[in-house]
Amino acid sequence: MIVVLKQNPNPDQVEGLVNWLEGKGITIHRSIGENQTVFGLVGDTSALDIGLISALDIVEDVKRVAEPYKEANRKFHPEDTVIPIGNTTVGGGNLTLIAGPCSVESEEQMVGIAKAVKASGVTMIRGGAFKPRTSPYSFQGLGKQALEYLKVAKQETGLPIVTELMDISQLPLFDDVDVIQIGTRNMQNYDLLKAVGRQEKPVLLKRGMSSTYEEWLMSAEYIMSEGNPNVILCERGIRTFETYTRNTMDICAIPVLKKLTHLPIVIDPSHATGRYALVPSMAMAAVTAGCDGLLIEVHNDPQHALSDGAQSLRPDKFDILAKNLISLHNFTASLPPMQFD
Amino acid sequence: MIVVLKQNPNPDQVEGLVNWLEGKGITIHRSIGENQTVFGLVGDTSALDIGLISALDIVEDVKRVAEPYKEANRKFHPEDTVIPIGNTTVGGGNLTLIAGPCSVESEEQMVGIAKAVKASGVTMIRGGAFKPRTSPYSFQGLGKQALEYLKVAKQETGLPIVTELMDISQLPLFDDVDVIQIGTRNMQNYDLLKAVGRQEKPVLLKRGMSSTYEEWLMSAEYIMSEGNPNVILCERGIRTFETYTRNTMDICAIPVLKKLTHLPIVIDPSHATGRYALVPSMAMAAVTAGCDGLLIEVHNDPQHALSDGAQSLRPDKFDILAKNLISLHNFTASLPPMQFD
Amino acid sequence: MIVVLKQNPNPDQVEGLVNWLEGKGITIHRSIGENQTVFGLVGDTSALDIGLISALDIVEDVKRVAEPYKEANRKFHPEDTVIPIGNTTVGGGNLTLIAGPCSVESEEQMVGIAKAVKASGVTMIRGGAFKPRTSPYSFQGLGKQALEYLKVAKQETGLPIVTELMDISQLPLFDDVDVIQIGTRNMQNYDLLKAVGRQEKPVLLKRGMSSTYEEWLMSAEYIMSEGNPNVILCERGIRTFETYTRNTMDICAIPVLKKLTHLPIVIDPSHATGRYALVPSMAMAAVTAGCDGLLIEVHNDPQHALSDGAQSLRPDKFDILAKNLISLHNFTASLPPMQFD
Amino acid sequence: MIVVLKQNPNPDQVEGLVNWLEGKGITIHRSIGENQTVFGLVGDTSALDIGLISALDIVEDVKRVAEPYKEANRKFHPEDTVIPIGNTTVGGGNLTLIAGPCSVESEEQMVGIAKAVKASGVTMIRGGAFKPRTSPYSFQGLGKQALEYLKVAKQETGLPIVTELMDISQLPLFDDVDVIQIGTRNMQNYDLLKAVGRQEKPVLLKRGMSSTYEEWLMSAEYIMSEGNPNVILCERGIRTFETYTRNTMDICAIPVLKKLTHLPIVIDPSHATGRYALVPSMAMAAVTAGCDGLLIEVHNDPQHALSDGAQSLRPDKFDILAKNLISLHNFTASLPPMQFD
Repeated sequence: MIVVLKQNPNPDQVEGLVNWLEGKGITIHRSIGENQTVFGLVGDTSALDIGLISALDIVEDVKRVAEPYKEANRKFHPEDTVIPIGNTTVGGGNLTLIAGPCSVESEEQMVGIAKAVKASGVTMIRGGAFKPRTSPYSFQGLGKQALEYLKVAKQETGLPIVTELMDISQLPLFDDVDVIQIGTRNMQNYDLLKAVGRQEKPVLLKRGMSSTYEEWLMSAEYIMSEGNPNVILCERGIRTFETYTRNTMDICAIPVLKKLTHLPIVIDPSHATGRYALVPSMAMAAVTAGCDGLLIEVHNDPQHALSDGAQSLRPDKFDILAKNLISLHNFTASLPPMQFD
Repeated sequence: MIVVLKQNPNPDQVEGLVNWLEGKGITIHRSIGENQTVFGLVGDTSALDIGLISALDIVEDVKRVAEPYKEANRKFHPEDTVIPIGNTTVGGGNLTLIAGPCSVESEEQMVGIAKAVKASGVTMIRGGAFKPRTSPYSFQGLGKQALEYLKVAKQETGLPIVTELMDISQLPLFDDVDVIQIGTRNMQNYDLLKAVGRQEKPVLLKRGMSSTYEEWLMSAEYIMSEGNPNVILCERGIRTFETYTRNTMDICAIPVLKKLTHLPIVIDPSHATGRYALVPSMAMAAVTAGCDGLLIEVHNDPQHALSDGAQSLRPDKFDILAKNLISLHNFTASLPPMQFD
Repeated sequence: MIVVLKQNPNPDQVEGLVNWLEGKGITIHRSIGENQTVFGLVGDTSALDIGLISALDIVEDVKRVAEPYKEANRKFHPEDTVIPIGNTTVGGGNLTLIAGPCSVESEEQMVGIAKAVKASGVTMIRGGAFKPRTSPYSFQGLGKQALEYLKVAKQETGLPIVTELMDISQLPLFDDVDVIQIGTRNMQNYDLLKAVGRQEKPVLLKRGMSSTYEEWLMSAEYIMSEGNPNVILCERGIRTFETYTRNTMDICAIPVLKKLTHLPIVIDPSHATGRYALVPSMAMAAVTAGCDGLLIEVHNDPQHALSDGAQSLRPDKFDILAKNLISLHNFTASLPPMQFD
Repeated sequence: MIVVLKQNPNPDQVEGLVNWLEGKGITIHRSIGENQTVFGLVGDTSALDIGLISALDIVEDVKRVAEPYKEANRKFHPEDTVIPIGNTTVGGGNLTLIAGPCSVESEEQMVGIAKAVKASGVTMIRGGAFKPRTSPYSFQGLGKQALEYLKVAKQETGLPIVTELMDISQLPLFDDVDVIQIGTRNMQNYDLLKAVGRQEKPVLLKRGMSSTYEEWLMSAEYIMSEGNPNVILCERGIRTFETYTRNTMDICAIPVLKKLTHLPIVIDPSHATGRYALVPSMAMAAVTAGCDGLLIEVHNDPQHALSDGAQSLRPDKFDILAKNLISLHNFTASLPPMQFD
């Protein structure tokens, strides 16, 4: 951590700060410039509160040098995390395809789509049971009933289930769920993160719609620090000034996170773009950039979808896409490596 | 609602859409242009799902004309909402000053600050008991113990308490709390919103850090549609590209919300700026723009604050500010009105 | 264009608006709803000023339905624009690789890099002569001298040159330049756009760092409406809240622009990311998403670069990347098509 | 400047960096931590290129400590800049009111508005002659003819003129102009900045729509470093995710810039909000926050304005506003000071 002092700081206050830091086991390296004095703090600075130090009258600025996350940090865990789920694994060079409807509407719909996407090569199914909708007057999901339909789809196809948990109180209903999704609006719902950190199922953690990489990894850290190491990060578009697409899909999150963390990274091009016509090219681009998997909305009849239909593909179109994604993944794996860092 | 069709749409699909809409009691006005056909939908469109209609092959774009919120909408409730809390009221031309430390640290600290800010003219006290911190390794607040200290401060000063609820499970501990704060990270935690909508205490709803006015009002609508009409909106800065301040304080939210809604609006310049030196001028500007109140962090000793010290004022400085705010509020009330819309 | 009237508008003002619009040859379709009246305007609305109509007391909102660009609009020019430059062409399914140093530093440097990247398969060279630097105290480019070095590199390799024009007064020096680059900071320098629209060289138009797709296409329209149809659009990252990378590279611009316009689209991953280690995966992703070309910074010795070294690759690393890009482009061209819109 | 090295850096490269820096007269203070080595660079680091150092294989991050602007920096010029213009002055505690139409349309219009706003207390008039419009098909301003009408308005009222310069070639037409405005789209048109830096008229520099405070001050530095010290900064709203208003007006720019620079700061609430009904409250808030002046659009007949009518006030409404602004400025000057930094 680096502490930049104001010009001509009160010497007593400077010594007060030095003593306080040394009392916490921190060693201080001083750089005294023409206009500015800078302290380099050495030791375990993760216990120090930046806000506290910034508040001091003599301090102009404080910057962290070391990342504040530990469990999620590749520096301390260089090997990729690989998460076994049912008969498949996420991470470690596999391409995990997760597909299904935005909302579970009926057993027939869910089982039908699950069978169709399985035939296209999908290894996990998704479907919304509890739906976080902007409006209280919009359809909020079938809830418990939807979880029953997902269970049937799992029994019929053998594919594991991913579905969203919105509140701790729903957890007892998730016995047959294989991966718990935490949605973008709950990425910093810390009590919920702690709760899923205290249970054993893998967690798919969506990026908050305006969260930085560091904040996202700190939310993963909340889960991991409670004991659950199986976190899958999911980029789903960030909020920018552009309004043509629902969000701006940040593909660069893939190589950045591959550097910063050992956790697997999955991309959701359906929510990121909000337009199904953009999903294929963005899904393909994500595979090329090195993602560990994709979460894609597929619907048997978008004309009658109850939510988010605009971003769903039909199974016949998804089938072409899925096969192209798998071909592309195999092709890129065969290219000469370009590890430059 | 306006539906823009693609060029040369399939006529059968157009008639399918028309029949489906008319089946829902919607009347359609067609504008057939050279390159584009536009449908104007008349009737109760709040039941229609934009996503569903957008998903149709024949549809290029869908736009809402009417606001999707009802309870929070000034069009349907032209009178200002005025909320009685203890011996004070929020809204309706009053200036509500709410002050206190970021985190409650001890009974002595909390009572000391409460007494000091009461002497400066404050009508409600705040203090963090449950703290939403980006890092799991940062101080998470004293929790239940802090609520006890807040209760003592309330007994000693007679001032009502505002404090943040992070999870439904904490609600039973909030008996002595007067106003429940929902933080920026939970603005779209819909289960939490519904829960505070089902109880009777007023709710101070902070704006999500990248939420639009409409999304914010839709979150208020979640609370109100469950039966609790007493929502106070709190602007606390939005996330932009500028990094000099922690957030960008959006003062324009005040006149915009005064037009869109009847709910009172409170400003939190401490979190919006993240720098205590900026708080006075921004607080003053907010009063001039017509806010109903301010939420300001005050700390007896920022050197030893456990969190967010950088944005806290000391009581002596706050005293000058509070008096200026009250003078300014009285002065602006005496000016000729400028209602232009 | 759609005009939404306020509730209970003054009938005389409404008729005034109707007469004024009809006087301009516009036909009006009225949708009279319960709470809102909406006008659908039919005819050539590109001559109408949205601001003017919005200003009327009776108007609540105005929305364009038709895109305001014509020359750049794929609806009116369905075929891809293919631009011949020297012995190569940009657009129409080719992959154009453009590479070179951020700043031209010497003849030796420029010729050396040009030869190296030619050997890797590059079809055009770039190098900064006039440099738009945030600080007046930073190196501003070698200017006219750099253009001489670029000319030598062109003579030695036969490759066309792309370089940035910052001001109209520099145009007479650009005789040997093949493609004129307009930088991100000048994307809305309309006099400069008109000037390059009045000459014949192709223009590579970088996206403004916070410009929407529509604004970007309107800037292309400025060039095209002056008579120059040869515009190449270049995405170079947009400004968002994320600070880990210099900008957020918006790969989704590729499929979106392919739909909206017939102009070729080139991607600059070097400026978009600001970190050379991220360039390879982002360049690969862009090819998969369907870009027409890439603009990549290559430097023979980043340790001694005078500007922007952090985003430059060395020729040996670039060689691996270039070959992978070409392989990938050929591979994706061989996949079953996924045109879904 | 602070340089953070990567873990286990190559010792030869470290010594290479040290020698190179010392060769430039920089002294290095080393902080060697458990996981990280940090160099504090002491000396004149404004000549060092951050990009160059970042490019080194051994460097993880580089951060500036000192601001890169000098002429505009309050640290080196603690006194407020006060700029005499005609019979008035900008800065130093005055409130400068600048008003006029968005576009100059006729002599009658311009003179009429100028006389009206003079009667309301305005000290400078504005009117667009050259208009930067997003569309090439929109009205581009009356140009030279408009400058003639502005000259007549100046003769009739004695008030100085502010108007926008879009290209260097227009400068010879600006003889009677008193303050040259550089628009938001040209804030980083460096050749234009240098040109207005080489002449003597004061420059009103609008903030780029997504420019940071530092970038804005660096653009002021471009002007000042060429010899023109008379720069007036003008905040006109920044681009954010919110679309209800045209831009988000950043009032916090006022106290921040008052700290960072000695230059006067003027606010343009008309462009910042894009809605005339929001102008009064935002103008008032800006005065309270300590701005040196306001730039407000006034139109005699918004129904017939040729551009940007939506943000214009009529003279009668502006008159109430102007008087309130002056009263408020006098009132706030009478309050106890709150200088906390």
